[in-house]
Amino acid sequence: MAARSLHFPIIIIIIASTTIIFTPPALASQPLNHLSSKRAPRFLSKHSYPIKTQLQEQQQYRYESKYFYQQLDHFSFLNLPKFPQRYLINTDHWAGPERRGPIFLYCGNEGDIEWFAVNTGFVWEIAPLFGAMVLFPEHRYYGESMPYGSREEAYKNASTLSYLTAEQALADFAVLITDLKRNLSAQACPVVLFGGSYGGMLAAWMRLKYPHVAIGALASSAPILQFEDIVPPETFYNIVSNDFKRESTSCFNTIKESWDALLSEGLKKNGLVQLTKTFHLCRELKSTEDLANWLDSAYSYLAMVDYPYPSSFMMPLPGYPIGEVCKRIDGCPDGTSILERIFEGISIYYNYTGELHCFELDDDPHGLDGWNWQACTEMVMPMSSSHNASMFPTYDFNYSSYQEGCWEEFGVIPRPRWITTEFGGQDIKTALETFGSNIIFSNGLLDPWSGGRYAAAIYGLQL
Amino acid sequence: MAARSLHFPIIIIIIASTTIIFTPPALASQPLNHLSSKRAPRFLSKHSYPIKTQLQEQQQYRYESKYFYQQLDHFSFLNLPKFPQRYLINTDHWAGPERRGPIFLYCGNEGDIEWFAVNTGFVWEIAPLFGAMVLFPEHRYYGESMPYGSREEAYKNASTLSYLTAEQALADFAVLITDLKRNLSAQACPVVLFGGSYGGMLAAWMRLKYPHVAIGALASSAPILQFEDIVPPETFYNIVSNDFKRESTSCFNTIKESWDALLSEGLKKNGLVQLTKTFHLCRELKSTEDLANWLDSAYSYLAMVDYPYPSSFMMPLPGYPIGEVCKRIDGCPDGTSILERIFEGISIYYNYTGELHCFELDDDPHGLDGWNWQACTEMVMPMSSSHNASMFPTYDFNYSSYQEGCWEEFGVIPRPRWITTEFGGQDIKTALETFGSNIIFSNGLLDPWSGGRYAAAIYGLQL
Repeated sequence: MAARSLHFPIIIIIIASTTIIFTPPALASQPLNHLSSKRAPRFLSKHSYPIKTQLQEQQQYRYESKYFYQQLDHFSFLNLPKFPQRYLINTDHWAGPERRGPIFLYCGNEGDIEWFAVNTGFVWEIAPLFGAMVLFPEHRYYGESMPYGSREEAYKNASTLSYLTAEQALADFAVLITDLKRNLSAQACPVVLFGGSYGGMLAAWMRLKYPHVAIGALASSAPILQFEDIVPPETFYNIVSNDFKRESTSCFNTIKESWDALLSEGLKKNGLVQLTKTFHLCRELKSTEDLANWLDSAYSYLAMVDYPYPSSFMMPLPGYPIGEVCKRIDGCPDGTSILERIFEGISIYYNYTGELHCFELDDDPHGLDGWNWQACTEMVMPMSSSHNASMFPTYDFNYSSYQEGCWEEFGVIPRPRWITTEFGGQDIKTALETFGSNIIFSNGLLDPWSGGRYAAAIYGLQL
Repeated sequence: MAARSLHFPIIIIIIASTTIIFTPPALASQPLNHLSSKRAPRFLSKHSYPIKTQLQEQQQYRYESKYFYQQLDHFSFLNLPKFPQRYLINTDHWAGPERRGPIFLYCGNEGDIEWFAVNTGFVWEIAPLFGAMVLFPEHRYYGESMPYGSREEAYKNASTLSYLTAEQALADFAVLITDLKRNLSAQACPVVLFGGSYGGMLAAWMRLKYPHVAIGALASSAPILQFEDIVPPETFYNIVSNDFKRESTSCFNTIKESWDALLSEGLKKNGLVQLTKTFHLCRELKSTEDLANWLDSAYSYLAMVDYPYPSSFMMPLPGYPIGEVCKRIDGCPDGTSILERIFEGISIYYNYTGELHCFELDDDPHGLDGWNWQACTEMVMPMSSSHNASMFPTYDFNYSSYQEGCWEEFGVIPRPRWITTEFGGQDIKTALETFGSNIIFSNGLLDPWSGGRYAAAIYGLQL
């Protein structure tokens, strides 16, 4: 199994022209028995939800876009070009420096910052109550915050990408907010951090590393313990699987059986043509694994956004979308094949609005999106799929092949122990209890990333 | 005034073959009115105290020297060569992992680690009482811990020097101790940090940044607030001056008047020849400023090591050496000139053993010692000399010329606000009180660096 496909994006969005496109997780840990070629991350541009539509829909959030020139390497004095970091700012409700109006800072994560801004209603809703300024700084190497002048140059090779790290992003936030406060004579105004997913990890780490900059953090769905030797590697897929099982055991079983069905169909004469038809693909399927990846991605993302109300963060979806998927899978007339049932179910995720008549499984030809780089350097989150509890094919994480894949893809060697050395891992309980005050870790237990949450490791995870 | 001479080394030692040589502070802030040429840091090899002698004298401290290969840049993924970090280790009294024997870690600062090891008796003395392991990791770019294979290569230019930063050094310590604990199955053994001067700053910062790695720190003489807009820039020289004044007002006055005497002597015909004789210099003096630097250095270092007992950390000295200097200056027979008095006094510092018959004021031809680089990048500590309270010539710190000098000397632009952004400064009180537990800041109030200490800024400095 190629290591590259083990890079599990927390949430990835990539900008291509004016459309925002999502990469669902590559089929991280499921070699389909004999199907085990290298897979590039896929970009489902045609199935994504354009950010422009979202922005138009959610015009209630007003902000200005500004730019701040940052050091490319805060921790060395190499003579490197500065880059413009974009940040969104709203001061409509700010009580100002004299009344020590707080500053709510959302730690931008791996995507266009506007996408996070329009999807983080909580910050906008509470800001007026606190007389708070709202600030959304963008994460370096995402959205418009590109070193070396353009995304193409920034993503050219391992050298240009080498400054895409969490520590550098935190330093960006610290430098920006310190400068901004000085310019506004707002040094006395407290900063409160917010963040979700990888952004939640950044918020928690920022409070730990820069306690003089921020007085507290709300870290949502932040899997800060999803690293080597802390959380069992099968946790993520076990939670996804359990989310389906709790809706319906037969739904869980159908999905679990579908991988073999997929594999044998693909091996038949004209099998790929048949699969292309069954799944209404726009182009003829080249390999069964591509289709398996596409399905895996949908299940994993559905578990991340299994909200009780309709939402459109990833895709336009109904409330409790996993329940809807299972209703479709279970509700097909007798005699419906497993793969037809799967198609019916998955359509909830990829085509809830019913607008699409066929589906694209496009691959990214370069495989150079930002999260894949981060997963191949610092963010090594081991993922396995267990034999019994998981509805995905069994897979054991293998670090050697992971490292090999990263070397092939980027020419970089991961440092799997660095994040826990820098931010704490095994020992974080003591540090957080005696040191890391004012951090709220909030998690939805249906979210598969909740397995890597702080509380889970301490009180034992109930699946 | 050239900026270079404003780089005030906290303590600098440089290795040249088998001899350890000290750089006293360049005459940081005293342009001698019209005398204002560029001055390179000077290496007083002939007046230094060879480390070998110290090591032979202090054989009671036993340790093994080991090496650990470190990332050159912990915060980027550039493909750079690793370098060997030296560390000294003693496990004679360690209670071991089962009994959770603690690990006492001295944060190596800007010099050969053996020099600090043999001069940090406290750690050695208390280790047996606690069943502690003793660990002295060396700071990168000092002693034997050289990137790029040699001191010459490491100090070649701004690019090779660019990874000489405090953050990288802290990461070195964190990676080393984490790896060492894993190899010794000693993950549960608590780490306590020690450090003096810049090493004390590192110890305090390490506890703040890596609370999961170390449970506490003893930060001695650590001027963590000696940065822009926190401590008044004249504080350092005011304390040095006060140390002399408390011994004797006439001594203080003689030194204060001596700069003008020096200047007018130097301007006379054959003045430099006369000064060469008065100060028993081995070679003919080239500029009055060189001599002034040499004197300034002695006063400043005397204030740093004005211990009540005989010591040999910087030079072999009697107890209360400033008192001895002032006795000599004040005790000369009537009719002794100011400069002759100064020479008598300064000889306590440069020639207490009486072995020297003449003095060298050698300059470093390259001006590339490590602390000067650090002062020109992160460690920008503004220093002025006030008109009344200081016995040194009046000088106002000027950042523009400081920056200019750094550009001339190293081709680097300082980041004077970075350290306080990264580690806290103005806001450190809140962070330390609500966050940074278990840090002891110990200071001798005669030490001029005590002006930049934590408590001083909060409770008001009494001079």
